[in-house]
Amino acid sequence: MPNYQSAAILGHPEIIETAREAARIADYLEGKGIRTVHGSLNDDTIRKEIWAKKIDFVITLGGDGTVLRAGHLCAPVDIPILAINMGSLGFLIEVSPEEWKEAVDRLLAGDCWFEERMMLQTSLWRGEKKFYQLDVLNDAVIARGENLRPVHLRVSLDGLEVTTYVADALVVSTPTGSTAYALAAGGPILPPNLRNILLVPVAPHLSIDRGIVLAEGSMVSVTVLSDHGSVVSGDGQESIPLHQGDRVDVCASKFVTKLVRFQEVG
Amino acid sequence: MPNYQSAAILGHPEIIETAREAARIADYLEGKGIRTVHGSLNDDTIRKEIWAKKIDFVITLGGDGTVLRAGHLCAPVDIPILAINMGSLGFLIEVSPEEWKEAVDRLLAGDCWFEERMMLQTSLWRGEKKFYQLDVLNDAVIARGENLRPVHLRVSLDGLEVTTYVADALVVSTPTGSTAYALAAGGPILPPNLRNILLVPVAPHLSIDRGIVLAEGSMVSVTVLSDHGSVVSGDGQESIPLHQGDRVDVCASKFVTKLVRFQEVG
Amino acid sequence: MPNYQSAAILGHPEIIETAREAARIADYLEGKGIRTVHGSLNDDTIRKEIWAKKIDFVITLGGDGTVLRAGHLCAPVDIPILAINMGSLGFLIEVSPEEWKEAVDRLLAGDCWFEERMMLQTSLWRGEKKFYQLDVLNDAVIARGENLRPVHLRVSLDGLEVTTYVADALVVSTPTGSTAYALAAGGPILPPNLRNILLVPVAPHLSIDRGIVLAEGSMVSVTVLSDHGSVVSGDGQESIPLHQGDRVDVCASKFVTKLVRFQEVG
Amino acid sequence: MPNYQSAAILGHPEIIETAREAARIADYLEGKGIRTVHGSLNDDTIRKEIWAKKIDFVITLGGDGTVLRAGHLCAPVDIPILAINMGSLGFLIEVSPEEWKEAVDRLLAGDCWFEERMMLQTSLWRGEKKFYQLDVLNDAVIARGENLRPVHLRVSLDGLEVTTYVADALVVSTPTGSTAYALAAGGPILPPNLRNILLVPVAPHLSIDRGIVLAEGSMVSVTVLSDHGSVVSGDGQESIPLHQGDRVDVCASKFVTKLVRFQEVG
Repeated sequence: MPNYQSAAILGHPEIIETAREAARIADYLEGKGIRTVHGSLNDDTIRKEIWAKKIDFVITLGGDGTVLRAGHLCAPVDIPILAINMGSLGFLIEVSPEEWKEAVDRLLAGDCWFEERMMLQTSLWRGEKKFYQLDVLNDAVIARGENLRPVHLRVSLDGLEVTTYVADALVVSTPTGSTAYALAAGGPILPPNLRNILLVPVAPHLSIDRGIVLAEGSMVSVTVLSDHGSVVSGDGQESIPLHQGDRVDVCASKFVTKLVRFQEVG
Repeated sequence: MPNYQSAAILGHPEIIETAREAARIADYLEGKGIRTVHGSLNDDTIRKEIWAKKIDFVITLGGDGTVLRAGHLCAPVDIPILAINMGSLGFLIEVSPEEWKEAVDRLLAGDCWFEERMMLQTSLWRGEKKFYQLDVLNDAVIARGENLRPVHLRVSLDGLEVTTYVADALVVSTPTGSTAYALAAGGPILPPNLRNILLVPVAPHLSIDRGIVLAEGSMVSVTVLSDHGSVVSGDGQESIPLHQGDRVDVCASKFVTKLVRFQEVG
Repeated sequence: MPNYQSAAILGHPEIIETAREAARIADYLEGKGIRTVHGSLNDDTIRKEIWAKKIDFVITLGGDGTVLRAGHLCAPVDIPILAINMGSLGFLIEVSPEEWKEAVDRLLAGDCWFEERMMLQTSLWRGEKKFYQLDVLNDAVIARGENLRPVHLRVSLDGLEVTTYVADALVVSTPTGSTAYALAAGGPILPPNLRNILLVPVAPHLSIDRGIVLAEGSMVSVTVLSDHGSVVSGDGQESIPLHQGDRVDVCASKFVTKLVRFQEVG
Repeated sequence: MPNYQSAAILGHPEIIETAREAARIADYLEGKGIRTVHGSLNDDTIRKEIWAKKIDFVITLGGDGTVLRAGHLCAPVDIPILAINMGSLGFLIEVSPEEWKEAVDRLLAGDCWFEERMMLQTSLWRGEKKFYQLDVLNDAVIARGENLRPVHLRVSLDGLEVTTYVADALVVSTPTGSTAYALAAGGPILPPNLRNILLVPVAPHLSIDRGIVLAEGSMVSVTVLSDHGSVVSGDGQESIPLHQGDRVDVCASKFVTKLVRFQEVG
C-alpha cells in the first residue's frame, strides 16, 4: 500500500468548472491526511513544488491537452498523473468526472497500475547553440508558418542524410501521438506501449508521402532549408519561429509520462 | 493573321535575369513595329495599361507563380499570356528561355492556339460586407495560421450545409490546381480542360478525408467556426487573416486565363 | 398524371422474404388495374417482357446489387426503377420496406421525379472481336484473378497511351460508383448527377496512385499486358477471365439508369 | 576466416541464363575446393541437401522472388544466402551479375556480414487442425479470390478481438515486406532491421484504413467470416483456398533469413 503524502491538482486554465472540482477533490484528499495544492497548469508555485519533487502524484482536470502539459511537468521528476476528463476528447484519459472519487480511492489503495508512455526529447539548435528543449508526449512538428508555402526540410537519421521533404509540415511522433496529428496527416497507428519513433509529412510535394517507423534508438535531425517562416511546436503548444539553417533533433527521451491506470491491459 | 499592336513583358520581381531578357524581347518586338512595355509584375504603370486593355498580349518571364499572378491581371480583360519559363518549375509553361524567339514569331504569325483555363471567383465576406475578391487559377485555400491548431470550417454547397471539416486547411481548386497544392493534400488529378471544382482537406481530423469533385455550377461557401488564427490565400499569395464567422464563397469565375499554346492537344 | 398499365417486381434471388413482399405489392398493383409480373432477377420470362418494353416500370426488392442488375436490364429500354431496400446497404435506395405503399401511390400519382444516372458502356475486345458488352452503373474493374500477383495494364485515353499500371485492379467508375469500390480504393467522391469518368487503381506499385477524373466524352482503353490470370467485372458481377492482349474499352453509355425519386434534390 | 566446404546455387526456374551463370559460378567454387550443387529452386535433391544442412551457403540467381523462396528453404536450417540479381527488381539484393566473382571471393574470405531479417510464422487452422505452415519473409496475405467481392475478416491480437475488416485483402507484413505489397496498399515504411509486425488492409470498405504497427511479440489471428472464395498466400506464392471459419495465425518466427552483405550499415 502506497504512502502518499502530497498531491497537486491541475486544471485547464480556461475551463471554469475545473476550479470548483479541484477544490472538491482537494478537500477529499486533505480529509485523508494528504497535503494538497491546486490551481491552473500555469501556476508557478505549484510548478515549483512539482519540480522540487515535493508532490507524490498529480491529478489533472481537462482534456488531452491538459495531460500533455502535465506530462511535460511531471515526466522529468517521475511523478504519476491521474487524468480526469473534463474536456471534449480524451484519448489519454480513462476516468470520467463522476468517477473521480472511486479513482482516487483506488489510487490511494494501490489498486491501479502505472502506464509508462514513451516521450521524445526535442532540441532546437541554431548554429552551435541549443536554444530550446522539450520532452514531448505526442509529437514535435516542424511546419510552415502563416504563409501557405511549404517548408523544405532535410532529414538525417543517426547523422546520415536520408531524404528531403517539401511539405506543410513534418510530424515526428511517439506511438501515443500516432492517433493525434500524425493520424490526420495519414500515418499508421501504433499501440501506445511501443517505443518506435514515427515520421509523417503533411501535404508533401514530390517527396516520400508514407509514414516511416523507426527504432527507439534513432536520432532524427530535421534541418530547415527554406527561408520563409517555418515554425516548430511540441505537443501542439505555441509555435516557435525557426530560421533557415536551424536544426531540430528528436530522439527517445530518458523520461516517460506515467499515467495511473485502472483497466486491465488489453 | 493577327494584327497585334502592343505587348507587355512581365518578369518575376526577384529574378534578375528576367529584366535583361525582357529588354531583349522588347527590342525584338519593337523591331516588328509592336509597341512594348516591360517591367516587374508589380509595375503599376504596366498594370494600368493592362486593365485599360491597351495591351494585346502579355509575355511572362518566370515560373508558375508568375503565370498565376499574370493570370489575375489578364483574365478580367481577356488578354492572352505567352509564358516563358525562367523559374524552377513550370507545369503551366511550354516555352523554355532559348525558344522565346520562335514562340514570339509563331504567336505573331497566328501559328498557335489559346488554351482557356477555368478560374474560381473567390469572395471574402465579413457579415454583410464583401471585403476581398480574387479570381484564382489554381486554388483558394482556407487554412490554419501560424499556430498548429486545426481550423473548424463549415462547408455549404448551393446554400445547403454539407459537412464540417476540422483540418489544417481546405483547398478549393480548379482542374489546373489539381496538380498543385490539392495533389499534395491527397486529391485526384483532373485534366486542365475540365471545368469541375475540387475540394480537398489537408490533414483532416475525424472528417471526410477524400477529395470531392463538384459540377462547374456549384457555389461553395466555407464559414470559419474556430476563433484562433485562420487565414485564406488565393493561388498561394500572401495570407489574409480571417475572423470567426467570416465566409469564403467560391464559384466558377466568368473569366478564364488564356494561355498561348503551340503543341498539339493531347 | 401517368397512365401505367404494367409493372414488373424483381426480387433478390437469395432473399426469401422478397418473394412474399413481391406478391403483396403485386396484389396491390393488380387492385389498381395494373398488370403485374413478379419473380427473381434471373426470371427469363420477366426479362423478356422488359426487353420487349411490355413493362412500364420496375420495382426492385433487395439492396444496391439488385438495383445495379435491374439497371442493366432496364436502362437500354428506358424503364424507370422504384427501388425498395431489403438488403443491408442501400446507397442507391430511398424507400424502406414499410414505406412501399406510400411510394407506389406517389409513383402512380406522378408525385415523384426520375433521377438519371450516368452509365459506362464496357466492351471487351480480343483481337478484332468484341466478345462482351455491358452497360454498368457503378464500375468496370480490371483486376488480378485468384493469384496475388498484380496485373500490368496499359491505359489509353482517346487513342493516346497515357500510363501503365501495375496494380491489383483498375476501377473505371461512374459518379454513382465513386462511393462504391472506387472509394475503398482511395478515390474521390463525385455527386451522382455529374457525368465524369473516374479512374482509380487498387494497390498500385510504382504507378500513379491518385484517382483521375475525366470528361464525359473520354474513351478509356485498358489493355492487359500481363499473362497471368486477370479478370474483368462489371458492377461486381461474376468475373470474366481476360487473356494477355485483351482490351477493355469504357466510355459514357448512351443509356442511363432511371431511378424513381421522392425526396427534393439536395 | 570461414571454412566453407559446400555450396548450393539456386536459379529462378524460368530464367534460362541463370543455368549458364550457375554452372560458371559452380566451376569457380569447385576450383576453390568447395563441393557445389546447382539447379532450379524446385530441384528436390538440392532441397533435401539444404534441409539436411549439408550445405554451408546458398547463392541465388534471380530477383526478389527467388530470394524469398530461398529464404523459406534456408531460414529453418540457418544457412546464409548470397543473392545475385538476375531479375527486374531486387530490393533484397546488393550484388549485380557482373559482380558475382568479387562477391564470392569476399564471402569466402569472410569479408562480409550477415543481415538477419525477421520472418513471420504463418499457420492455417481449419477447426482444430493446422493444415499448413510457412515462415514468410515479406508477408502473409488473406485476400479475395477470383471474384471481386471483399472478404470479411475478424482480427484478434493476443486472443482479444480488435476489429473486423471488409476488404480486398489484409496484408500481415514484416519490416522487409513493408516496401513490397504493404506499400502498394498504403502502408508505412519500416527499416528492415526492425522487428515489428505490420497490418495493412487493401481497399477497405468502412473499416480502419490505416496501417497498424505491432510489437514483435504479438500474435495476430485472422478468421475468415465470409463464405465466398477467400485465399491466403505467403510471400506472393500460389494462393491456398480458405473456407469460412478458417483461421490464419501470424507471429514472429523463431527463424530469420540470413543475407550475405558487403555494404556498410546505413
